[in-house]
Amino acid sequence: MPTLADVIRELESRYDPRWAESWDAVGLVCGDPSQPVRKVLFAVDPVAAVADEALSWGADLIVTHHPLYLRGTTSVAATTFKGRLVHTLIKNDVALYTAHTNADVADPGVSDALARAVGLTGPLVPLSPSADDPRRGLGRIGSLPSPMPLRDFVRQAAAGLPGTAGGLRVAGDLDREVLRVAVSGGAGDSLLGTARAAGVDVFLTADLRHHPASEFIEAGSGPALVDAAHWATEWPWLAEAARLLTSGTAAGGINVETRVSETVTDAWITTAKCEELTSRTPGLKAGA
Amino acid sequence: MPTLADVIRELESRYDPRWAESWDAVGLVCGDPSQPVRKVLFAVDPVAAVADEALSWGADLIVTHHPLYLRGTTSVAATTFKGRLVHTLIKNDVALYTAHTNADVADPGVSDALARAVGLTGPLVPLSPSADDPRRGLGRIGSLPSPMPLRDFVRQAAAGLPGTAGGLRVAGDLDREVLRVAVSGGAGDSLLGTARAAGVDVFLTADLRHHPASEFIEAGSGPALVDAAHWATEWPWLAEAARLLTSGTAAGGINVETRVSETVTDAWITTAKCEELTSRTPGLKAGA
Amino acid sequence: MPTLADVIRELESRYDPRWAESWDAVGLVCGDPSQPVRKVLFAVDPVAAVADEALSWGADLIVTHHPLYLRGTTSVAATTFKGRLVHTLIKNDVALYTAHTNADVADPGVSDALARAVGLTGPLVPLSPSADDPRRGLGRIGSLPSPMPLRDFVRQAAAGLPGTAGGLRVAGDLDREVLRVAVSGGAGDSLLGTARAAGVDVFLTADLRHHPASEFIEAGSGPALVDAAHWATEWPWLAEAARLLTSGTAAGGINVETRVSETVTDAWITTAKCEELTSRTPGLKAGA
Amino acid sequence: MPTLADVIRELESRYDPRWAESWDAVGLVCGDPSQPVRKVLFAVDPVAAVADEALSWGADLIVTHHPLYLRGTTSVAATTFKGRLVHTLIKNDVALYTAHTNADVADPGVSDALARAVGLTGPLVPLSPSADDPRRGLGRIGSLPSPMPLRDFVRQAAAGLPGTAGGLRVAGDLDREVLRVAVSGGAGDSLLGTARAAGVDVFLTADLRHHPASEFIEAGSGPALVDAAHWATEWPWLAEAARLLTSGTAAGGINVETRVSETVTDAWITTAKCEELTSRTPGLKAGA
Amino acid sequence: MPTLADVIRELESRYDPRWAESWDAVGLVCGDPSQPVRKVLFAVDPVAAVADEALSWGADLIVTHHPLYLRGTTSVAATTFKGRLVHTLIKNDVALYTAHTNADVADPGVSDALARAVGLTGPLVPLSPSADDPRRGLGRIGSLPSPMPLRDFVRQAAAGLPGTAGGLRVAGDLDREVLRVAVSGGAGDSLLGTARAAGVDVFLTADLRHHPASEFIEAGSGPALVDAAHWATEWPWLAEAARLLTSGTAAGGINVETRVSETVTDAWITTAKCEELTSRTPGLKAGA
Amino acid sequence: MPTLADVIRELESRYDPRWAESWDAVGLVCGDPSQPVRKVLFAVDPVAAVADEALSWGADLIVTHHPLYLRGTTSVAATTFKGRLVHTLIKNDVALYTAHTNADVADPGVSDALARAVGLTGPLVPLSPSADDPRRGLGRIGSLPSPMPLRDFVRQAAAGLPGTAGGLRVAGDLDREVLRVAVSGGAGDSLLGTARAAGVDVFLTADLRHHPASEFIEAGSGPALVDAAHWATEWPWLAEAARLLTSGTAAGGINVETRVSETVTDAWITTAKCEELTSRTPGLKAGA
Repeated sequence: MPTLADVIRELESRYDPRWAESWDAVGLVCGDPSQPVRKVLFAVDPVAAVADEALSWGADLIVTHHPLYLRGTTSVAATTFKGRLVHTLIKNDVALYTAHTNADVADPGVSDALARAVGLTGPLVPLSPSADDPRRGLGRIGSLPSPMPLRDFVRQAAAGLPGTAGGLRVAGDLDREVLRVAVSGGAGDSLLGTARAAGVDVFLTADLRHHPASEFIEAGSGPALVDAAHWATEWPWLAEAARLLTSGTAAGGINVETRVSETVTDAWITTAKCEELTSRTPGLKAGA
Repeated sequence: MPTLADVIRELESRYDPRWAESWDAVGLVCGDPSQPVRKVLFAVDPVAAVADEALSWGADLIVTHHPLYLRGTTSVAATTFKGRLVHTLIKNDVALYTAHTNADVADPGVSDALARAVGLTGPLVPLSPSADDPRRGLGRIGSLPSPMPLRDFVRQAAAGLPGTAGGLRVAGDLDREVLRVAVSGGAGDSLLGTARAAGVDVFLTADLRHHPASEFIEAGSGPALVDAAHWATEWPWLAEAARLLTSGTAAGGINVETRVSETVTDAWITTAKCEELTSRTPGLKAGA
Repeated sequence: MPTLADVIRELESRYDPRWAESWDAVGLVCGDPSQPVRKVLFAVDPVAAVADEALSWGADLIVTHHPLYLRGTTSVAATTFKGRLVHTLIKNDVALYTAHTNADVADPGVSDALARAVGLTGPLVPLSPSADDPRRGLGRIGSLPSPMPLRDFVRQAAAGLPGTAGGLRVAGDLDREVLRVAVSGGAGDSLLGTARAAGVDVFLTADLRHHPASEFIEAGSGPALVDAAHWATEWPWLAEAARLLTSGTAAGGINVETRVSETVTDAWITTAKCEELTSRTPGLKAGA
Repeated sequence: MPTLADVIRELESRYDPRWAESWDAVGLVCGDPSQPVRKVLFAVDPVAAVADEALSWGADLIVTHHPLYLRGTTSVAATTFKGRLVHTLIKNDVALYTAHTNADVADPGVSDALARAVGLTGPLVPLSPSADDPRRGLGRIGSLPSPMPLRDFVRQAAAGLPGTAGGLRVAGDLDREVLRVAVSGGAGDSLLGTARAAGVDVFLTADLRHHPASEFIEAGSGPALVDAAHWATEWPWLAEAARLLTSGTAAGGINVETRVSETVTDAWITTAKCEELTSRTPGLKAGA
Repeated sequence: MPTLADVIRELESRYDPRWAESWDAVGLVCGDPSQPVRKVLFAVDPVAAVADEALSWGADLIVTHHPLYLRGTTSVAATTFKGRLVHTLIKNDVALYTAHTNADVADPGVSDALARAVGLTGPLVPLSPSADDPRRGLGRIGSLPSPMPLRDFVRQAAAGLPGTAGGLRVAGDLDREVLRVAVSGGAGDSLLGTARAAGVDVFLTADLRHHPASEFIEAGSGPALVDAAHWATEWPWLAEAARLLTSGTAAGGINVETRVSETVTDAWITTAKCEELTSRTPGLKAGA
Repeated sequence: MPTLADVIRELESRYDPRWAESWDAVGLVCGDPSQPVRKVLFAVDPVAAVADEALSWGADLIVTHHPLYLRGTTSVAATTFKGRLVHTLIKNDVALYTAHTNADVADPGVSDALARAVGLTGPLVPLSPSADDPRRGLGRIGSLPSPMPLRDFVRQAAAGLPGTAGGLRVAGDLDREVLRVAVSGGAGDSLLGTARAAGVDVFLTADLRHHPASEFIEAGSGPALVDAAHWATEWPWLAEAARLLTSGTAAGGINVETRVSETVTDAWITTAKCEELTSRTPGLKAGA
């Protein structure tokens, strides 16, 4: 029967921990390398609902994209949701393993799956290639099969990504023709300048805040921006990671069953539309 | 005729620069204290569209909430949008003045206007009071006239805030009864712990990203979260600041005309809804 | 039945975590506050042999002086002895709690027990009193019942401390009359200057290395030094902490059974005597 | 007649100061390069007893392993033992020279002499080779002529090292067969992980404290540990350094007389055995 | 008609901004690359008198050696002399451009012009060559046509540099024969050790203060020192930079008129001689 | 006979080392507190010429204003001028003592003597008072007996200060009437802003470099500047310190003879006048 060590070996042949950023925390969080593993659940976030899903299904291992403890902890007491998760997992013999920035920069990695989900075809290259290996890196640049208005690309991207309350937010001219597209799973504000320098027509990423986004648009002459839910941009990778694990272990004569979590771990559950400014501004002209 | 120095004196009686955070950059950005000032435009962001509005109207001074150069610059050459703005303003004798964190912590300040806009009544107290003066501080806590479901509060808040593409995003149980509400104009992630400790029922702020928001919700036992556009949470303050300036200068026998900019400087112009996960997940069960 | 929360409340009435140093990591390391606790094992170090002792005896809680993770960890995987310990404890419902520098500075604290073990009588005062509360602090100063040669004090201290391979090491004149004695449980090199300034006759502590110890002796005019095993200087406190817990909980109508671990967790198991220099130096006079 | 400059030139051909660590302080501490030097005393520590020995013998130069001022000083006033030493040496025309980490990493260096003293035969290689020159580095790895129980190796090492009060302390199974041995003169805690990675059977060094030593042993699967007095691990090098100086200067037609100091500068003068825990524990079972 | 962009391109072919130090602030400070430029004024310092000179002459661009804002600013308000300068320049369509440490290390650069001005002939090499390109670097070393007493070199240097109140200050033996000379425009204290190591006979630079200069002289065995006004050591470069710009643009078929500012921007306007100590010391012998 | 300890006690009653800046290095540099002291030489700098003067006169102690080792040293070998000084002094039983920033802020201190030397009368107050004791602080502010043109004040100051090659340098309008004067012995650039804020008419100090001085003058509306030799501004204090020591020790029944060094330790020995710009500029108009 396959052990956790066998599964980790296969995962790390794809997502080598040495490629993780220095500030990151990847690898095995809890579990014993010698324990048997038959069922593996893939999820974006290590949270209680995902652990419940794992227990219901009988998973032996959860592989998440986000670390449980990105910063070190000196306690796993069941006084926080993270400590309660550790207790639940250890008591139920469920291991937890994280592939984070090492999965981001892998070839193929998190942004490859995102690129395919939003309809990019043909070859993909890193948006920010690693100095040590240019086939690896953060983000991906690819092309659409043919130019289309930004408006149509947004519809296509929305159709390819899993649903969240906020959906996609768009900045730029909806009639602009777009062909070359950069995508980056997760928070992409640090790549805004790189995306501009790359000369792409649109940059799709997540967690863009007011100052980076509005200064980027104000500077002009750069790509349009599409902002999705952080979770939604990373979720497409789970299926690919699961597929690679099953095929990789099968090639070694080992049978591992995988499943992708369907729990939406985006925080937002609904949205509400605010008043249009034009309908209420007369009374606000303070100086009148 | 009133001078820029006169207007600054009045503004600083309300928004004393000594109350700005040490990392902030408030006060006069360009202009000469001895120049005359008759018309003052109030806006959230110092951007080209706001400068155009100022020139069309004939403003002598723009007062913004956000600094043009939060970090120091060694050049104002017209090779960036910021440098171009400086050239436009100086050539047209339009001064630029910023009241940022000193306006946030003022009494009344940015979050007081936000609190009233979303329907809080009665007394307001700082969410994070200043150690030096407890009437000042970041954010405000207040109450609704009577308890209501979160769903209704969100509708009411949406009706009170100016429209942006993204509107409001909500995390929490929509049926939860809420009464005590904390609000904080602008990016509020640093106040999440404070809001939990304050025991409020809902916290409305802006620019919340995946990790702070989802870990906050996962930890449980805290307020619901409402996330608005950064711009929309600060815009309500402009009318109040304008009113205080006109009344303050009038009391000193000086006539200054004010106007609140109606330019929406939020980056996002539209949204798109993604696919519901349930309708597409069968094919995604990678391990099946 | 008493819960872990009840026991922690009693422990923290004696060893308040707020008195721990800022770099320290005290409190609950694993376990759930709502779990029942009937048997508590006290030990210096959180190691496998101590966990075995706890399991054999049926303990629900181990209280140690040393933290398991003094520096934060991002993994408790069973790939290190620390992670294996966490798995063993959680799987067996044994909680782990640490009282470290908060126990050092408590009144009475770790060095009070050490002082009594080596024969100090009468009142004890902190060697390095806390600025906030002079009854607390690191180390203790006390007196012997009457002056005695250092040689005799060393014999008495050796008789009062639990046995380790290295025993006590002594620096100073064995015939010196000593009366006032400073002691500090654990590594005491940072207190050498304080002990000299205090004008005591002898300073007993642990983990003194060559440079601090030999420079201290070379500087002259200070106390003699006695260096014990780190473990041996902290072990006497365990019995007192156990006694205070049982009496404290009993006063609240709760019955908790305690035991002091007898596992010697000092690393050294034996010693060997080197050659006297005088018997071999002729051949070593290289220049002869 | 040879000058101090001549002797320094010869010493630095063996122990080039450029190989000292960046934090170290090696080279000439006091003395004038033009002064004559006929007699050179080698010692581990620059202390008063060594200076007395130098004066009695009529030495013109003391070469020590340890720096007098590792951290910079702004005063050499005779108000500290170090300042008094400077005054004594300068007034008596005795120069002081230090070869510290540059002697540690030299080939042959401090740990080569230690390796031979404890009975290693055959080739020696650095435990932690320098990236710039793999023949240099901290510590040495070598082999015993044939496998022997740890117990016998300890006896042999004890017989080869100069006597100190504490002798050797041993952690590990005394019956373990050992063949490959790592040694490092002086405090060796920073090399514990390197020694484990090197796969040696035993690591002999000095100044090991409780936490590094006990965590190392608890982690298992590594070498046994032998801890000697810091002074005793570095003293064997003195004879070699003296021999190299006399032969080196003789080759240049210069006659320099050398001597190795026999002053034991380890701080500890005696030890005392503590009580065995088993004979006294009944009364200590606090919970009984 | 030539644009500012054309002129900048020519300037940067000589003084590439990538060669500026990381702490420096070079390039365009204000102005628009598309504005026409016919007349260019070169000056050491960006001050009001230089701006007046530019306006009188009808300059479109001022090129200075010193940055206006070496440290970043968050305001260019006309409340400081720097902000007033920015307003004056922008309102009058005069651009400001800085070439500072990139001009220092250029080949030829600031110290080449200084070397020629003080009479060095033959080839010049950098005093502190850049690791990346040894033809570039700070300072220059060259030779006099033949050896001469320091006294004569000082007279010659004084005749070659523009007049300032303080003139030259000299440290060293006026009768010393000097041949090899190092010069460095601007504050040269950081190059004192380099000048000594280079073995030159005299080092001419500016802004030397008491401690660096007097410790350098006290150490002996180094070059004589000549200290000039900071402004005077950099002014000679202006003519060369102007000449290179006119010839460079002419070669591209563009006509640009240049002028070197004659405004002395050294702070000091006069000097006064103090009393000779010998004439007044009797009364000062305090202990008499 | 008085000992060094006696003299130090008296000096520190005036110049308490606890008032020195944290970065400073004051107190005894070499010598033994128990050695006899009959003759004390006061000087600004600890250099060889001052040591020669001390030996000629038979001094037992040199008191200097400047530290020998402001930054720590790990060697006093006679390979640098500082080490040679230490050897000379120790071999000749001459102690060295420094009173630096503790003498600057003393009441009276270094700048009081400077103020009197340049003709200030009436009460003196610190330019930058200490927060802990407002009678102490850096620099002094005082008044002239009556207003006079800056030109006359400069002449008067020049007459009162000991002669150096560079004399005084002046920035400001020579016809300006001056009455209130700030002075600060030694390098005063850090006090420029304080002097402006104090509203004085002239600020006399030393070691002013181009950027601080020219930016200060360019900013306008502040005091005129007078820059003297660093040495010349501190020398007047020596006589007062000597007088206080003799009277203080005499009051205690101890006879100590003092003398003020007349060695000028300013680095510059002569000056030379550069060419007036007007006489040579025609050929320099590069663009002509």
